[in-house]
Amino acid sequence: MPDNATPELTAFSWVPPMPRGLVRDLRVRWVLEEMGQPYRTRLFDHRTDGAETRRPDQPFGQVPAFRQGDVALFESGAICLWLAERDPALMPQDEAARARVLSWIFAALNSVEPNILMLQYVTLFDGDKPGATEFAPTARSRLSDRLGQLSEALCENEWIAGPFSVADVLMVSVLRQLGRGDNLDPFPNLVAYVARGEARPAFQRALAAHMADFVED
Amino acid sequence: MPDNATPELTAFSWVPPMPRGLVRDLRVRWVLEEMGQPYRTRLFDHRTDGAETRRPDQPFGQVPAFRQGDVALFESGAICLWLAERDPALMPQDEAARARVLSWIFAALNSVEPNILMLQYVTLFDGDKPGATEFAPTARSRLSDRLGQLSEALCENEWIAGPFSVADVLMVSVLRQLGRGDNLDPFPNLVAYVARGEARPAFQRALAAHMADFVED
Repeated sequence: MPDNATPELTAFSWVPPMPRGLVRDLRVRWVLEEMGQPYRTRLFDHRTDGAETRRPDQPFGQVPAFRQGDVALFESGAICLWLAERDPALMPQDEAARARVLSWIFAALNSVEPNILMLQYVTLFDGDKPGATEFAPTARSRLSDRLGQLSEALCENEWIAGPFSVADVLMVSVLRQLGRGDNLDPFPNLVAYVARGEARPAFQRALAAHMADFVED
Repeated sequence: MPDNATPELTAFSWVPPMPRGLVRDLRVRWVLEEMGQPYRTRLFDHRTDGAETRRPDQPFGQVPAFRQGDVALFESGAICLWLAERDPALMPQDEAARARVLSWIFAALNSVEPNILMLQYVTLFDGDKPGATEFAPTARSRLSDRLGQLSEALCENEWIAGPFSVADVLMVSVLRQLGRGDNLDPFPNLVAYVARGEARPAFQRALAAHMADFVED
């Protein structure tokens, strides 16, 4: 892999207003900004480029997909991990510390995010489907239990797995999807944790680049 | 990390009959068996050992948690990846091939499993809650779309990311949760894929050890 090749990331040039600031290319941009690694984007218009257009790079027709030299990846979690392995500031080299970061990467994506996704399905994506409204309180309660456990694990620590790492990029990004709703409010340490992540200059640069790639309408 | 230390895995000595054969320690046992790596288990009884008992090892009170020497991990995905990195038969060393395997690991856990989990919530875990039955067809349809994309990606290939790898351990384990239900039936290549995984001697040994650790009732 020519490490000096410029990475290329797929992203959207248009999505509806709501998901702007949340599409998953942002997670990868954040990691790239933490690394100080320049990259270019290849953009799709959600209105005109169907999932089929994106399928050659991403089997589920989503963004982001990633290329650097002869390496191609999809799934923002995989891309973030692969990149972080190239920067000890994002993935420690000490084996015990690395194991902690790996654990929290998967916790964010396989133990926290599915509960958020379930709530999003019944309140947003499929909120108009039969049973959705009635099931929402159950989904909210499941999520709240999980957030309570996460809040206890974070405790008064600044970051989730020791010093700041790629696990925080993913966990903060996952929690950001709860937006300004009241789901996080019972857990002030999680609210502060998300704010700490969002305050990082690298996150701010990534968000600005993510937003700048959208055309107005 | 003393690589010759015997790994220790947490698992259950009792769960109700239904999840037997599906609890996530099985995923890690499968990887360990593929590696020919002996291990020991530390068992909890689901009836008497509450989540608090398991919390020191696993922040969500689940199994498995894993220790080898001074390395501790939780999240079956993290444990399987960490172990696979020690065996080129499970994680290729060529960077482009490794990137493919990483992508499919995260696809299994972050793009396929959440859709299965949503269906399990509305049909099993929370099947008696308001709206669950009415929402089930929507969850089934979302899952079916995702399985269709996975089926196209697998195509006529034997394994999901090139030669057999840890990505197959995770993807087959994720799909096995659909059990004998009819959700996989429209995708004969996925049915055959799961059967291929289950036919591996290492899977059979792992399943036998997983089942043998359960007390009768």
